[in-house]
Amino acid sequence: MPKPTPSDAPADDLEQGSTLMPRFDRDGLIAAVATDAATGDVLMLAWMNADALRLTVDTGIAHFWSRSRSKIWKKGEESGNLLRIAEMRVDCDQDAIWMKVRVEGAGVACHTGARSCFYRIVPVGESGSARLTRGS
Amino acid sequence: MPKPTPSDAPADDLEQGSTLMPRFDRDGLIAAVATDAATGDVLMLAWMNADALRLTVDTGIAHFWSRSRSKIWKKGEESGNLLRIAEMRVDCDQDAIWMKVRVEGAGVACHTGARSCFYRIVPVGESGSARLTRGS
Repeated sequence: MPKPTPSDAPADDLEQGSTLMPRFDRDGLIAAVATDAATGDVLMLAWMNADALRLTVDTGIAHFWSRSRSKIWKKGEESGNLLRIAEMRVDCDQDAIWMKVRVEGAGVACHTGARSCFYRIVPVGESGSARLTRGS
Repeated sequence: MPKPTPSDAPADDLEQGSTLMPRFDRDGLIAAVATDAATGDVLMLAWMNADALRLTVDTGIAHFWSRSRSKIWKKGEESGNLLRIAEMRVDCDQDAIWMKVRVEGAGVACHTGARSCFYRIVPVGESGSARLTRGS
C-alpha cells in the first residue's frame, strides 16, 4: 500500500479533515460571506485576517479586516447592527467562510442603509445596454 | 449648488447607479458567490475575470476564472453540473457578485461530490480544541 505523498496527504486533510486550516491569500485574508439565517439572502461579502477570524469564532459576532482602513472591523460596532452568527461553515479547500447570521439593531447590513449589500439585480442573458435594477 | 467633485460622483454612481461597473482586484478578479435558488444555501465561492463575468451574463450559465489552471472555467462543463442563473446581483461597491442558481445534472456543486462546498461546520463561541463537523 503506497504511503500518501506529501502533496496528496495535506489536500485530503484540507478537504476531508476536521481541523480548521484556513488558507489566507497573499494579503493574509480569506473571503467571508454572510447570509441571513432566516431568509438565506446574501447580506454581504467581506474579508477576514487571522485575528478577525479568531475574534469571530471566539465571540460569535462577525469581525472583518477593513482593507480601506487597514484595521479590524467589528461590523455594526457603531450602528448596533452586529452580525450574530447562527452557524459558520468553511468550504472544501478552506479558502472561504460562510456565516448564517442574525442582524442585530435595525436589521440593516449595508452601510447604504439597505438590508443587504446586494440590492441591485444584474440582467442576465439579455442583449443591448443592460441596466441594473433595484431588487427587494 | 456645489458641483459634485470627482471623488464623490464616482462613489455615488458605483453605489446607487444603474450601470454595472465591476471592480476587479489587482489580479483582475471579482469574488462570486453562488447560492441555491430554492434553499438559499451557499454552494460555492469562486472568482471571475472580466471574460468569465461577460460569459456568465451573456449565457446565464456561471463561468469562473480558475486560479489554479489559469483559464476560464465553465463550471460543470465536464460533469454536467452546470450552474444556471436564476438571478444575479452586485453589491454596493461592486466588488462582489451574488448568483442564485439551479444546479443542473446531478445537482452537485462541489468537486468532492457534496451538494455544497460548505459541508463542514466551524464551532463558534466554544472553548478548547474545536473540531469541524460534517453538516447536511
